[in-house]
Amino acid sequence: MQPRIVEVRQGILKKNDLLARELRRRFHDAGVYVVNLVSSPGAGKTALLERTLTELGSRCRVAALVGDLATDNDARRLARSGARVQQITTGTVCHLDAEMIATALEGWDLDALDVLFIENVGNLVCPASYDLGEALRAVLLAVTEGEDKPLKYPTIFNGADLAVLTKIDLADAAGFQRDEALANLQRVRPGIEVLETSARTGEGMDAWLDRLLPSAASA
Amino acid sequence: MQPRIVEVRQGILKKNDLLARELRRRFHDAGVYVVNLVSSPGAGKTALLERTLTELGSRCRVAALVGDLATDNDARRLARSGARVQQITTGTVCHLDAEMIATALEGWDLDALDVLFIENVGNLVCPASYDLGEALRAVLLAVTEGEDKPLKYPTIFNGADLAVLTKIDLADAAGFQRDEALANLQRVRPGIEVLETSARTGEGMDAWLDRLLPSAASA
Repeated sequence: MQPRIVEVRQGILKKNDLLARELRRRFHDAGVYVVNLVSSPGAGKTALLERTLTELGSRCRVAALVGDLATDNDARRLARSGARVQQITTGTVCHLDAEMIATALEGWDLDALDVLFIENVGNLVCPASYDLGEALRAVLLAVTEGEDKPLKYPTIFNGADLAVLTKIDLADAAGFQRDEALANLQRVRPGIEVLETSARTGEGMDAWLDRLLPSAASA
Repeated sequence: MQPRIVEVRQGILKKNDLLARELRRRFHDAGVYVVNLVSSPGAGKTALLERTLTELGSRCRVAALVGDLATDNDARRLARSGARVQQITTGTVCHLDAEMIATALEGWDLDALDVLFIENVGNLVCPASYDLGEALRAVLLAVTEGEDKPLKYPTIFNGADLAVLTKIDLADAAGFQRDEALANLQRVRPGIEVLETSARTGEGMDAWLDRLLPSAASA
């Protein structure tokens, strides 16, 4: 039975890749910079995004799509920033795919946007295989998760353009070994850019916003 | 294409359920109590298991199967406890299934065991759908992950017999809202048993071990 599964999955991935290519063309033509945020559940995607939408929203036009199995809690929380936010509820599906993005964006005027964030389902495995047409894939790693995660989930770290260490205000309390985590990131994805942030204290937020803004301007 | 996927997945699940039933019969006949540990990546499965194997190992015969996409770091770390530990490397597969467990146990004398732990792949979505023949499914939730996880990943919490709050030594630093987390657990899975632990300080470990021992004795 195993070969049959692989075959079908390849079929889905090819279909996804075609849709993702089409999305990427639309995003490029509209000049919207698209950021796909992936991480474990609870690594702080929503907290980072909440602060990002508020702070970036005063400097350019931002919006977000938010993937979750259930609940629209995150979308309601993020909408308080004033940005346009839409929930994508996946049910039992462990990732977002390009078709879900295309459907969620029906009726949107992409020309009216500078940056679109996509908050993926919290999962370090499945989202790695689904291109969403993004320009930047950022993988978040909370300092409370342990330094070994890049080694244990290499595919998603290898496929990311940027790693964002989150919750750095908890680094001391958690006994986080920063050098070891950075070495593991470089081992899995040599040369990967790394930012260090705390959405709670605001530390590192400027560097994160500065990383996004020039790309937003030239998208 | 979607219906075709669902159809194939149902086929796999049925096959998995048959294999899980067979495993459960073998575990029962051998008198081994099997615990399936599921959680997000970095919620502390390995830390809890490391301490559990050491402390429980002086009172009964314990072993562990450890699932990971890549690396055998956890298995090597856990083997220091003196317990028999075997790695299951899943590659890009986001969960363990009953066939992987059956294969890993080839050649094992189950009669020589009292408790077998299965550390699943770190993932709050996919492992929910795969019965491994376990007697107890324990879902771990680290206090650093946020109180809303049961609502956002309801299937895995709903399918668990026991919830273990982990890293409670970090609760204050993380601003963990305990009452809210407990209420969310009960909302998703009314009546679920909850234990609170810190593998670092040892807090709550006795209650966890006491929970396992009578079951181990009567398995």
